[in-house]
Amino acid sequence: MSDDDQELGITESKSHNTGEWYAEVVQKAGLADYGPEGMSGFIVTRPRAYAVWERLQGFLDAKFKDTGVQNAYFPLFIPESYLEREKDIVEGFDPEVAWVTEAGNKELEERLAVRPTSESIITPYISQWVRSHRDLPLRVNQWCSVVRWEATETKPFFRTKEFLWQEGHTAHATAEGAWDETMTRLDQYASVYEDLLAMPVLKGQKPDHDKFPGAETTTTVEALMPDGKSVQAGTSHHLGQSFAEAFDITFSDEDEAERLAHTTSWGLSWRALGALIMTHSDEQGLVLPPGVAPEQVVVVPIWQEDTKDDVLEYAEGVVDDLDEAGVRVDLDDRDERNPGFKFNEHELNGVPLRIEIGPHEVEDGELTLVHRPDGESVVEDRDGVVETVRDHFDEIYAKLYAAAEETLDGEVREADDRADILGTLGQHGGYVKAPWCGDEACEEPIKEPMAAEIVMVPFEDDDPLAEADHDETCAICDDDAERTAYFAKSY
Amino acid sequence: MSDDDQELGITESKSHNTGEWYAEVVQKAGLADYGPEGMSGFIVTRPRAYAVWERLQGFLDAKFKDTGVQNAYFPLFIPESYLEREKDIVEGFDPEVAWVTEAGNKELEERLAVRPTSESIITPYISQWVRSHRDLPLRVNQWCSVVRWEATETKPFFRTKEFLWQEGHTAHATAEGAWDETMTRLDQYASVYEDLLAMPVLKGQKPDHDKFPGAETTTTVEALMPDGKSVQAGTSHHLGQSFAEAFDITFSDEDEAERLAHTTSWGLSWRALGALIMTHSDEQGLVLPPGVAPEQVVVVPIWQEDTKDDVLEYAEGVVDDLDEAGVRVDLDDRDERNPGFKFNEHELNGVPLRIEIGPHEVEDGELTLVHRPDGESVVEDRDGVVETVRDHFDEIYAKLYAAAEETLDGEVREADDRADILGTLGQHGGYVKAPWCGDEACEEPIKEPMAAEIVMVPFEDDDPLAEADHDETCAICDDDAERTAYFAKSY
Repeated sequence: MSDDDQELGITESKSHNTGEWYAEVVQKAGLADYGPEGMSGFIVTRPRAYAVWERLQGFLDAKFKDTGVQNAYFPLFIPESYLEREKDIVEGFDPEVAWVTEAGNKELEERLAVRPTSESIITPYISQWVRSHRDLPLRVNQWCSVVRWEATETKPFFRTKEFLWQEGHTAHATAEGAWDETMTRLDQYASVYEDLLAMPVLKGQKPDHDKFPGAETTTTVEALMPDGKSVQAGTSHHLGQSFAEAFDITFSDEDEAERLAHTTSWGLSWRALGALIMTHSDEQGLVLPPGVAPEQVVVVPIWQEDTKDDVLEYAEGVVDDLDEAGVRVDLDDRDERNPGFKFNEHELNGVPLRIEIGPHEVEDGELTLVHRPDGESVVEDRDGVVETVRDHFDEIYAKLYAAAEETLDGEVREADDRADILGTLGQHGGYVKAPWCGDEACEEPIKEPMAAEIVMVPFEDDDPLAEADHDETCAICDDDAERTAYFAKSY
Repeated sequence: MSDDDQELGITESKSHNTGEWYAEVVQKAGLADYGPEGMSGFIVTRPRAYAVWERLQGFLDAKFKDTGVQNAYFPLFIPESYLEREKDIVEGFDPEVAWVTEAGNKELEERLAVRPTSESIITPYISQWVRSHRDLPLRVNQWCSVVRWEATETKPFFRTKEFLWQEGHTAHATAEGAWDETMTRLDQYASVYEDLLAMPVLKGQKPDHDKFPGAETTTTVEALMPDGKSVQAGTSHHLGQSFAEAFDITFSDEDEAERLAHTTSWGLSWRALGALIMTHSDEQGLVLPPGVAPEQVVVVPIWQEDTKDDVLEYAEGVVDDLDEAGVRVDLDDRDERNPGFKFNEHELNGVPLRIEIGPHEVEDGELTLVHRPDGESVVEDRDGVVETVRDHFDEIYAKLYAAAEETLDGEVREADDRADILGTLGQHGGYVKAPWCGDEACEEPIKEPMAAEIVMVPFEDDDPLAEADHDETCAICDDDAERTAYFAKSY
């Protein structure tokens, strides 16, 4: 192995030093760089990561548009007085706000917040736009960046002071309409993970004490990371009427009565990229499902001097066929690198499917297909390559999903007293299900020694403990259990 | 005419009060709202305008990707020390910068600029990424917003303190490569206007004294507005080696010598939306070419009680056919509005093609198609509606382009002395072509009394005065003329 080959390897262990391994994958696969000096907490999203974000955006945006959402764009800054109109929000975000205080060579009369989220500037406009029940439901979404000045250590795509996301904001005539909206978006988030990113997720709600400021219910999709921690992978908030009241969203109903609207908001950030990278990647580097990979296929021709022309011509034909069919394919015909180096490099970069073509393949009218991540190698006919490659994409997606699902299934455990919860979390990580009385105080005895918390509570309909006739008691206080709590450490 | 009908009309005159007319179109067609109190200069981009922006983005982004550009995302903030590394830039933008000075409840040690443009943060990363000639050309682009704190009056999409744009940044091994890049992007900008927005533009370069700070050459596409002013509609800068030097972009060339790269940057903003709205719209409201219209077709069924079922069924069939073919079509079957109101409303909103369907159309298997903006009405067969509608889209585009081209052709005049330039500009507006010595001092005698300036100079190859053998003299100073200058008032 040459020096070059070694540089391509990931030196950290995924299972032992997950954080360091992740940082190394992000850097070596060219996904992100850290921000400039004086701007810790910021990252530069490099083209290969941004291309994944664009595919995720395209997938989700199409779902939004199919279900009545329109995109818009609101100002980057929010006057301090606007933030203060919704006290619950400012209390939630104030310590994390970045403030513009000078502009155009002058001190500003009022500080302007760089948006940490846009409820307080979007809701007043929704209030102007809504007059009649005919204007409802009203749904706007924006793709933008927001800034939250958290002091913790930077972790690209997981913890950054600025992050890319979408934020949707809607108003409805009824509570039921708002609740349906909340769940529609949560289901769409789950679909991004499951159908596009090959990651199973858990759906549920946050405990009341951990809701979005001002929300009636915060729903969440949670994804399990390889270090046994849970990641809040997308949230959809049923805001009830608190924002409508603070910002005066009223409408004249069919019976001409003036009524207060019900609102929702929902967001998914580039944290999805982080969760994706963490879940599937390995010690050879990045692993991506074909649906989001910037390059889906790389064709590597393998020749000696006397076979070069034939091999290259054959390889180019394959690339042309795939390219014409819309497959994202590269031909790696670099002279200065040997095939072994190329294999390593494309594995590092997360190309899902490698096609090797040597003189034997040319002679037999065949192709050797190699899957990322498991290295499974299959010989296929050259004819019908487009169909064949698409079948292999499906197989690779299915393998990734199955592996992630197996991991998740094995990482949900049960416990029924404090010691058991702490012991199980300490030994295995993952999720520990326990009966819970619903009281925040009963999270403390777990949170305090372990830094684990209730990351998710299944929805009422999915939770047998939400029914009246059971005799389970809270794992902590022994009062009647009201719900099942999922304890986990979290990002 | 009911009160409702009157509300739909534009009350200001396009030719006499262009500014007020424009503001009224923007507001009544639901394109943008002004920012909140305390934030003059900011606007809210409403869904119908944002949808146009998305189509423009899609068109341009596809061209970028076809020509080697990759999207990325860089931090929103730039440390003051970074801005200062390229003196020319900070001198250019300093008075317009918005500064973040407090964040996370603390005063920052160094002020952070909200990006006015990103050369000074992107170039240092390009410098890290470029090592060898094999890394070149390197091309990154980002779609984002930037902030420039101008004190002038707000004009949605033309003059706002925050605006959406794309900024591309590239590095090349040779000056020729950088120049080709500059022109490739300028041509793509021209194509956005001409092929998508149905607007002819003039291509050329800015006079040296009006270049982007630090640039060797600033090229521009200029569009003529109905008030006779020119709008700088997109710029592409050949930056030479000044940024490469300031930020140390060097590479080892094929001969292993270490060389300094050549860079470019190029940007197109939502000003394109403003120019689009201004150019084609009229006193009935917004006019859009079909390629960017959020709704391309509206079908208006016209019925009496006894014909309602037949007319509606027929109309729904037409809508289904168009919808399936990917045409953006709405059915306006509102009961509470009469056809006249609907016509006015869709005209206000800039729907390019209206299809009217009454009992006669049903009986004869026909459709009545009405073009926006000229109201031309054509009866066509119901069969083959998709093809027919597409043909009408082409006709509407062609009409819009031809009208704008005729206007532009008539608004380029010649003059050969100062009095003539001032008189022609004063009487007609538009562009006045005059021989020019190349000296900034010779712009002053026009700029000072008239607020008109040299907005564009044709490229050397397009300008007979750039050749040696002519005997024209500068219209102002009578020295030898070096180039043709286009004088105009500008936005």
